[in-house]
Amino acid sequence: MPVSLEVNGRTYHWPSRPTVVICFDGCDPDYIAAAREAGVVPALDRMMGQGFAAEALAAMPTFTNPNNVSIVCGAPPSVHGVSGNYYLDRATGREIMMVDAAPMRADTILARFSQAGGQVIAVTAKDKLRKALARDLAGVAFSAEKAALCTLAEHGIADVPQLVGRETPDPYSPDLSLFVLDAGIRLIAERRPDIIYLSLSDYVQHKHAPGTPEANAFMQAVDMRLAALLDLGAVVGIVADHGMTDMATPEGGANVVYLGDQLDAEFGPGATRVICPITDPFVRHHGALGGFVRVHLRRNTIGRDEVLTFLRGLPGIDLALPREEACARFDLPEDREGDIAVVGRAGVALGARAIDHDLSQLAGERLRSHGSLAEQPVPFIVSHRLSEAYVQRAKTAPLRNIDIFDFVLNGVEG
Amino acid sequence: MPVSLEVNGRTYHWPSRPTVVICFDGCDPDYIAAAREAGVVPALDRMMGQGFAAEALAAMPTFTNPNNVSIVCGAPPSVHGVSGNYYLDRATGREIMMVDAAPMRADTILARFSQAGGQVIAVTAKDKLRKALARDLAGVAFSAEKAALCTLAEHGIADVPQLVGRETPDPYSPDLSLFVLDAGIRLIAERRPDIIYLSLSDYVQHKHAPGTPEANAFMQAVDMRLAALLDLGAVVGIVADHGMTDMATPEGGANVVYLGDQLDAEFGPGATRVICPITDPFVRHHGALGGFVRVHLRRNTIGRDEVLTFLRGLPGIDLALPREEACARFDLPEDREGDIAVVGRAGVALGARAIDHDLSQLAGERLRSHGSLAEQPVPFIVSHRLSEAYVQRAKTAPLRNIDIFDFVLNGVEG
Repeated sequence: MPVSLEVNGRTYHWPSRPTVVICFDGCDPDYIAAAREAGVVPALDRMMGQGFAAEALAAMPTFTNPNNVSIVCGAPPSVHGVSGNYYLDRATGREIMMVDAAPMRADTILARFSQAGGQVIAVTAKDKLRKALARDLAGVAFSAEKAALCTLAEHGIADVPQLVGRETPDPYSPDLSLFVLDAGIRLIAERRPDIIYLSLSDYVQHKHAPGTPEANAFMQAVDMRLAALLDLGAVVGIVADHGMTDMATPEGGANVVYLGDQLDAEFGPGATRVICPITDPFVRHHGALGGFVRVHLRRNTIGRDEVLTFLRGLPGIDLALPREEACARFDLPEDREGDIAVVGRAGVALGARAIDHDLSQLAGERLRSHGSLAEQPVPFIVSHRLSEAYVQRAKTAPLRNIDIFDFVLNGVEG
Repeated sequence: MPVSLEVNGRTYHWPSRPTVVICFDGCDPDYIAAAREAGVVPALDRMMGQGFAAEALAAMPTFTNPNNVSIVCGAPPSVHGVSGNYYLDRATGREIMMVDAAPMRADTILARFSQAGGQVIAVTAKDKLRKALARDLAGVAFSAEKAALCTLAEHGIADVPQLVGRETPDPYSPDLSLFVLDAGIRLIAERRPDIIYLSLSDYVQHKHAPGTPEANAFMQAVDMRLAALLDLGAVVGIVADHGMTDMATPEGGANVVYLGDQLDAEFGPGATRVICPITDPFVRHHGALGGFVRVHLRRNTIGRDEVLTFLRGLPGIDLALPREEACARFDLPEDREGDIAVVGRAGVALGARAIDHDLSQLAGERLRSHGSLAEQPVPFIVSHRLSEAYVQRAKTAPLRNIDIFDFVLNGVEG
């Protein structure tokens, strides 16, 4: 094996023991703080005490696909091209949901280590991410959601429910994430992989605030799995793809600004098109409402400046940025950006038109979602002591979740 | 609360922290040894190193119901009356499957502590045991098998799948046991009960030998839960109801002596009746074949001595004992004993007539079962240091699994 590999401009050392990176979907730092307060996460306590713990910034927009891909590439969306779960193809005008690796244009750390002879495994909660994480990966990659359907040819593994000891979990349950962790534990015990990436689901966080019994129960169940990973001698790094914010009014209804309706009223129906890049197959989580949307203008009919001015005057809007400025500020790929990128204020959800969103999916629960700057801070935890150089680095430059592979592979002391 | 309680002639101190007794169904000591060898049970390693670990004897016959009831009563079957999963009612001549507490005639430690104001919880894998464990229990008692059906009125709890974070497990899966442990963890975290009894299923052990990947995976998954229980500050005691022995021939077929057929051939059809007290609703586990059966004689038609002599001459028979002798030797209730108790040799299953047993339930797997003396040795593990008096006691008198509540409530230091 090589001593190290360069991927997307960064060098990564070959791990000497199984190295796990967990993307703890939707894990706002408050979930960890509340669970520690309740005394239900002893393994996390140990990790944070004996290893390294800080907060880092997620990539914008704070959605699942852009951040998972950023983490496994160790690079921002401008490099790999994935800036949403859902986007408008500027060439064809069609709206496209990302369900595979097609929009990706950078190598992943996972793929490169696997091609160099490393044993690499990626397990994700939702199948929508699986193909992206598996891009060029010569190893095992599967989702908990489709665990029973794995084949050696397609996923590099079969009989996953037998491996884990239970059937495929309900995709709308906390067990979707726990199944991912349990699969990781079994695979480390049986195969001692070099690198394993475990990407969870934010089902619990979309439904329950930090410190609630449901949230603490989930944190405790995750913690039990962290203890098992550590007991197996793994180095464990934890980050999140985004935090989570309550986006309901005091009365409990969703606190939404329907930009599509507002723009239609102001500039005429169809003059603009609002794309909600949070949209994914898991609409029960969020009703496709989050803190970041993209506005596309019908060409040659409307001036961008007047739309920017209008948007900036609306309540609930934090930022309305022209494409170039949004891309420069957030490291986003220009060819996949809207004419205008809109960021909501903390606690405000942005939508297209009201008729585009099915709030009945929330089943009367408060809307909790993400996408804006408010969900950028995420945990950044490493199970083992870092070298002095990495401790200093974390103090002097802002940490990002995309730094996690660098820290676990290069920063952990012998 | 009282300082201590007397139950069935023994005194138990009131616990100062949550005290958990786990009945690790079918856990032959070899499962633990092989899992330790494989390095997959770090929490058990710690418990055994820092606390107390020995082997103890299960009650005869080595079946689930007699042993679970013995453990929660802290007394042998002669005291509480339950000597099988299935028995012939001598008064009516009817065969009866034990599905509730009707055959019990002693108080349980659980019931007495709950009546004295303690918060007591019993969780069992299979519902067949639930009513027995819940006898007179003023607290929470439910089974994983029927988790979704719990009501406050009947079980003292509702919404168990929500508590645990996943749906009711498949009764024929390792998860049936893991669900019990996860429920226990959640209940300790949320309610800090005084005493909690967790009774697992031997689904894995009936199918897989110690040290197999499937067995080690299960041991590892259990171990993760033990770590969580210890992290919550609980005192944990582990025993088993019985071990498990391979009862197949070298060619893989079930190694069965059909006593019913043999007795019919020798003494005429119907002169005797063979009762298999392993019989329970979980026939896929064992096809109702185990290492212990009871022979009832049709009254006044046949001499017991000649039947005893005949049985003792058969291959595969370890012991054939007249009722009085069996009851004296094994502390069994005379009114529920057969005229003759028959114990198989290690590795031999005893059946009634071949037509009474559906071996297709084994689906081609090797028969693994229990009931005889070979399955009496079980683990006896306490998570915390014992007082010198209890260490000495364990050295000087044979330990039994029914001693576990005594050890965790009275023997643990400070």
